[in-house]
Amino acid sequence: MSEIRVSPDQLRGLLARILGGAGMSAANAEIIAGRIVAAERDGAHSHGLIRLAGYLSSLKSGWVDGRATPAVEDAAPGLAAVDARNGFAQIALAAGTEPLLAKARANGIAALLIRNSHHFCALWPDVEPIAEAGFVAFAFVNARSRVMPWGGTRKLFGTNPMAFACPRRAGPPMVWDQASSIRAQGDVLLAAKRGETLPPGIGFDAEGRPTTDPGAVIAGGAIAPFGGHKGSSIALMVELMAAALTGGRFGFEDAAAAFPGAQTSNAGEAIIAIDPRRVAGDAFLDRAETLMRQLVEDGDARLPGDRRYAHRRDAMANGIPIARTDYDELRAQAG
Amino acid sequence: MSEIRVSPDQLRGLLARILGGAGMSAANAEIIAGRIVAAERDGAHSHGLIRLAGYLSSLKSGWVDGRATPAVEDAAPGLAAVDARNGFAQIALAAGTEPLLAKARANGIAALLIRNSHHFCALWPDVEPIAEAGFVAFAFVNARSRVMPWGGTRKLFGTNPMAFACPRRAGPPMVWDQASSIRAQGDVLLAAKRGETLPPGIGFDAEGRPTTDPGAVIAGGAIAPFGGHKGSSIALMVELMAAALTGGRFGFEDAAAAFPGAQTSNAGEAIIAIDPRRVAGDAFLDRAETLMRQLVEDGDARLPGDRRYAHRRDAMANGIPIARTDYDELRAQAG
Repeated sequence: MSEIRVSPDQLRGLLARILGGAGMSAANAEIIAGRIVAAERDGAHSHGLIRLAGYLSSLKSGWVDGRATPAVEDAAPGLAAVDARNGFAQIALAAGTEPLLAKARANGIAALLIRNSHHFCALWPDVEPIAEAGFVAFAFVNARSRVMPWGGTRKLFGTNPMAFACPRRAGPPMVWDQASSIRAQGDVLLAAKRGETLPPGIGFDAEGRPTTDPGAVIAGGAIAPFGGHKGSSIALMVELMAAALTGGRFGFEDAAAAFPGAQTSNAGEAIIAIDPRRVAGDAFLDRAETLMRQLVEDGDARLPGDRRYAHRRDAMANGIPIARTDYDELRAQAG
Repeated sequence: MSEIRVSPDQLRGLLARILGGAGMSAANAEIIAGRIVAAERDGAHSHGLIRLAGYLSSLKSGWVDGRATPAVEDAAPGLAAVDARNGFAQIALAAGTEPLLAKARANGIAALLIRNSHHFCALWPDVEPIAEAGFVAFAFVNARSRVMPWGGTRKLFGTNPMAFACPRRAGPPMVWDQASSIRAQGDVLLAAKRGETLPPGIGFDAEGRPTTDPGAVIAGGAIAPFGGHKGSSIALMVELMAAALTGGRFGFEDAAAAFPGAQTSNAGEAIIAIDPRRVAGDAFLDRAETLMRQLVEDGDARLPGDRRYAHRRDAMANGIPIARTDYDELRAQAG
């Protein structure tokens, strides 16, 4: 397979043209194209180019509004809210980030609560810029039901990712982003496509019985939460934070099924930003570094995100690797 | 074994006298006695009467100050900070709760950052009253190193519990409280005492090798995080929130070893409170109930905390069950 290298800007331009051609406004298309490129650049392929088809079919289905202009509300001195107006969450986040940071600067802590939004990207890009601006940040996103609560018999929670970011003295922030499920939905789809079985403890069929058949998981079954009842509690927290708190929809209320081809969920997102200097002072960054040094100096332990940053350095220096056939197809789609 | 029932007030009075006799101020002793009783009342025995000896030996060692008066600082419109002055975290929390709630009411979100504190109680009682007051709440507490980071070879994190609480329309809040470790330190101690082995995947010896010998885990070894690398990321987050953000000590910096008998850690605690009505309005409680109903109506799934509340109802109606020999011993200790 012949591989070429393309610059992030070049790839973003191509993707923005394709998304614009599918009905997105130019400004919105730029933001989503940037997120797909960021994932591909960081080697996070599950949220990279492989998602383009899902964006396009969701737009085509009429389920998500690619031209949505989010409405930002000043809900409280420490709270900004955004109605994404059935658009992508990243557009709402872009509109709400400055209010969030201004509130966090003024009060030491603030939250941004987004509802009526579709989140189809990785979650780490939502918090990385907040940490780059000097804040400790949390993010919570829910999505359509795919995960079975501990002790349950049917899916209820989404794969419900949570992300956490902490600024660092030098270099990019420490950022983790992890699903509440023991496996990504994408891994189950991939196993089904390849005709493989799942390891035990991952999946349930539509009757709630354990199964190793990925097809049975996809056909109305469910994925287990990570870490047993503890991951289930985290999935419940994410659902409450991203939907109940924002005024958004729960995963089990998602109505995408009425729109054939729709792959995204209309749900919500909550972000918290804390100014770490207000109490710990400028020493905060040194203190955080003291802990992280202990971690990376031991065995094979490493900081969450380090693998992504290694991919990023390579991509920024040499371009993003992409199969020539994929690139030619993107160029054809972009017209 | 003959068992009697004692009222929560009666038991708290006894414990407060014992703790006062060990050098705690009367007000501080009341708070800690109340926490031990709350755990015993809720059937959370690992943080109940079994901990009394640890409190007493920690006080006797001189490592913790039972008479500490915490210093509350108004750090920002949304942030209150407390220097626990080497006392128990619950005393600092009691001093900081009103400032925290006032800030959360005014701004929609606020945090309380406690440093120089010893947390030896369960964590759920820290957030339950905040949710009773109408707020969604998070808590993070670090402690001396006992947990090995994923991929590491030596202990670094504490068992680092995190708690989450959400108000409910009727009855007590939904509250979970879970360690970042796959097993509680208390379970490992119990296995050692009973001469049992641990299941595989729980423990490591002092050289970082997997072991099923609880004695090897206690003798400089480590416990695994829950849920693999995801629990390890959560333990890292808790360490940053509870120590770096508050200006407190990391678990690996704990100096208790210089005080023979000391069982507590001088570390920190962070609490976040969010007013859920500022964005979602009064509908919040109904929305949260809609989700929780889905959960409890399915199979053996149940809300985190439900088992504790069942114990509590029984204890409030009939008294807290306690072995007669234990009760007689407490009375003798109280003098």
